Amino acid sequence: MHLSFRFRSWMFSTGVAALLCGISPAVAETSLDFIAAQGPTLDRIVNDALAHPRAYERLVTLCDRHGHRLSGSPGLEAALDWAVHTMKEEGHVNVGREEVEVPQWIRGVESATVLTPRRTPLAMLGLGNSVGTAPGGVEAEVVTVSSKEELKSLGKTVHGKIVLFNNPMPKWTTENGPCYGETVQFRVHGPSMAAEQGAVAVLVRSVTARSLRTPHTGTLFYQEGTTRLPAAAISTEDADFIARRQAAGETVRVHLAMEAHWGTPVKSANVVAELRGRELPHEIVIVSGHMDSWDVGQGAHDDGSGVVMAMETLAALKRLGIRPRRTIRVVLWTNEENGMAGAKQYLKTHASELPNHVAAIEADLGGFAPSAFGVKSADEGVQSRAVVELETLLHHINRHAIGASGDLFIKPGSSAPDVYRFANEGVPALGLYTHDEHYFDYHHTEADTVDKVDPQELARSTAALTALTWLIAEMPTRLGSGEGSASH
Amino acid sequence: MHLSFRFRSWMFSTGVAALLCGISPAVAETSLDFIAAQGPTLDRIVNDALAHPRAYERLVTLCDRHGHRLSGSPGLEAALDWAVHTMKEEGHVNVGREEVEVPQWIRGVESATVLTPRRTPLAMLGLGNSVGTAPGGVEAEVVTVSSKEELKSLGKTVHGKIVLFNNPMPKWTTENGPCYGETVQFRVHGPSMAAEQGAVAVLVRSVTARSLRTPHTGTLFYQEGTTRLPAAAISTEDADFIARRQAAGETVRVHLAMEAHWGTPVKSANVVAELRGRELPHEIVIVSGHMDSWDVGQGAHDDGSGVVMAMETLAALKRLGIRPRRTIRVVLWTNEENGMAGAKQYLKTHASELPNHVAAIEADLGGFAPSAFGVKSADEGVQSRAVVELETLLHHINRHAIGASGDLFIKPGSSAPDVYRFANEGVPALGLYTHDEHYFDYHHTEADTVDKVDPQELARSTAALTALTWLIAEMPTRLGSGEGSASH
Repeated sequence: MHLSFRFRSWMFSTGVAALLCGISPAVAETSLDFIAAQGPTLDRIVNDALAHPRAYERLVTLCDRHGHRLSGSPGLEAALDWAVHTMKEEGHVNVGREEVEVPQWIRGVESATVLTPRRTPLAMLGLGNSVGTAPGGVEAEVVTVSSKEELKSLGKTVHGKIVLFNNPMPKWTTENGPCYGETVQFRVHGPSMAAEQGAVAVLVRSVTARSLRTPHTGTLFYQEGTTRLPAAAISTEDADFIARRQAAGETVRVHLAMEAHWGTPVKSANVVAELRGRELPHEIVIVSGHMDSWDVGQGAHDDGSGVVMAMETLAALKRLGIRPRRTIRVVLWTNEENGMAGAKQYLKTHASELPNHVAAIEADLGGFAPSAFGVKSADEGVQSRAVVELETLLHHINRHAIGASGDLFIKPGSSAPDVYRFANEGVPALGLYTHDEHYFDYHHTEADTVDKVDPQELARSTAALTALTWLIAEMPTRLGSGEGSASH
Repeated sequence: MHLSFRFRSWMFSTGVAALLCGISPAVAETSLDFIAAQGPTLDRIVNDALAHPRAYERLVTLCDRHGHRLSGSPGLEAALDWAVHTMKEEGHVNVGREEVEVPQWIRGVESATVLTPRRTPLAMLGLGNSVGTAPGGVEAEVVTVSSKEELKSLGKTVHGKIVLFNNPMPKWTTENGPCYGETVQFRVHGPSMAAEQGAVAVLVRSVTARSLRTPHTGTLFYQEGTTRLPAAAISTEDADFIARRQAAGETVRVHLAMEAHWGTPVKSANVVAELRGRELPHEIVIVSGHMDSWDVGQGAHDDGSGVVMAMETLAALKRLGIRPRRTIRVVLWTNEENGMAGAKQYLKTHASELPNHVAAIEADLGGFAPSAFGVKSADEGVQSRAVVELETLLHHINRHAIGASGDLFIKPGSSAPDVYRFANEGVPALGLYTHDEHYFDYHHTEADTVDKVDPQELARSTAALTALTWLIAEMPTRLGSGEGSASH
């Protein structure tokens, strides 16, 4: 899951940005001085990442050996064990599982079939966290809507019906990006919207602009106090079919059967590993991805790619003998897709350590070439200063031309799903953005397989992530501190 | 099914082509004189086709009401009845079913699962006309090959194994087109190749260059005297997965279970309808598409588009009050996909009438914008003369700029699957070519649905087909005759 934001270019030159943010340009210049001295090390990091498709090879191993990895599945636990084993073998320290209790949602057998005007099986996937239907399923007429307002205008006529939310995702454009946030609201909140008007079940047009009869699952959230309706995604083709028949004046009846249910919560874990800092080992920079996925495909882009980029960050620095000033901690989150139990538990387990967290970085927008880093902090001063400092760091990374279309840039105010809670605590939370034109073709589908990842694009994102993580761990001032000098 | 050919431009000017083919330029000029006088009628035909998405509306009705239409299915027969009813309602003459006995291949329940190194269900579709497995299925190690030579070099080691033909279809290019013919040979002949070396079953990488875990079915042909092996297509992703695990040194075992079998042959029909010629009603120009499809998706591009273009040709001429010199006969073939019983039966039923067939045209490359017409005749003289004449006709159609990328052109030596048997009898057989970059994304899959057809592109191909069919039916000389003057 990733709530995207409008794609806007923030191409401030460092000096201009510093002035706009009311920070002394001296800070930026201090950082620049520091960075200039790091050039050869930065070169080594980027060249190493681009020279060999190590992240991709790691991804193949993860995806082919363990497949998809939903919370509560043996696949997830085996993959977490694999990560522990691998990172121990690579000689990292403080490698291990940090226990997290995760929910266990079980899909079971499911189907959706148009009964009238013509019996047609629909390409469907139940939505994650949905309740199931009664045994034997539910059968009702379908009412199709394309907005919350349209649904409300129908009033009580929705009673006893199946509501189809038929909102096509716009095509990806450079200017607007994927428009995921605008489209996914019906998958997330549609079931409760429909329940308020007495519907008996919900179908949602899959959140994608490109389909080969491909249903996309993903989580829903039931609003407290509303009836929990069974809900499934259907392919865009099937949504179009239903809408066409209705536009032609025909009544469409659908039978929906879902065995979806909750099992007992089970033990899972976040996996952690560290490269201890040489001067400020108590200060921590998190680099992360989430290990769990939906129960389809291989979870290759979402988020096997983030996992291997984080692992490779640590492995590369160790391989190159680069030990930064601060500690870099890899975290491979569990349960991002349907509960965020991993991220929530981390904040509890590490509550006393939280003030020592300098930044929390996550890659969760696929293994495509890099485009930007989001940065967010609830402390506006921290965020403003971090933006300026990060632009300085990126200026040097951009010399290596690893961005997908031009320079990498900073997107203030956004981060990534497992780390945004750090932002709420005042810790700068960062998210890697990629050239995501095709991300939502594969997202949460059977087609999110490792062949969709280009080894060189993944290497470029790995280079960006490793370089920025290292620079944040190495810079003399703490990110966003505005201290203007080394913090030791 | 459509065996494609290398895409080559044949941009002869009429005069040059005439000289090259050894035909008197006077013939071409006579045609030109004739055509020049037909300008206003041609304008009306093309403008009518482009003004309103009638072909598309017809396609929606066909696809949504009847769904896919495999030989032997109720869907096919209902669609044929719909075509009869529709064309009678439109006031055409000699509308009816011409009985054809067709085979009845029944897919039944089927599955393919990787057992080792990790249990993984494969996205698969049994190949059309395949035998089933024994009850309980077949389980064996997979041997992956990418050529006939590689298979042969393995000799007896193939014995008892499942052979995977893993030949990626190249990406579509303007120069080479889709490369379907080169890639599909393993789907068609692979099962018999593998049987010769003692294999027990066959998997084939789906014939496509773009996949979202999308298996593509299609027919196989068992060579006489070889064991008939059960055979299935798997998605490109699944073929890649198996090949990757084998490249990593792992043994891949697969369980394949298919209930596929033959039912009793059943009665089906070609549907015909006519616009009788005003001067030479006994001379016939066929315009056609095939009504049957595979048992997945909606058969929208393959070949619902051809069906509605042929129907719309007749409807448009009637609507516009244009009655050509010769008779135009719509034929909607049955059983193109797995037997060609419709085309074969037509030649028997109409054997005595065959000398009066002036041309047989078919559209079977989807509902995309038009790019060319193939023309073929076993009589080389007829083909050469027809090429020259058709280039003259296209010259005038091209004034309307309905080609997908530049002018429509003639591809000598190719036609379309239901009509090439006419070419063997000396009748010029023509096939409409389209801008087929995406045809093989959808071909023979669950994703061949009406939403994949663009109304305006279909209208452009309909305009091309209607215009050329009319011109061939109207021209004073018989196509390919070289008579140089009106044949009445």
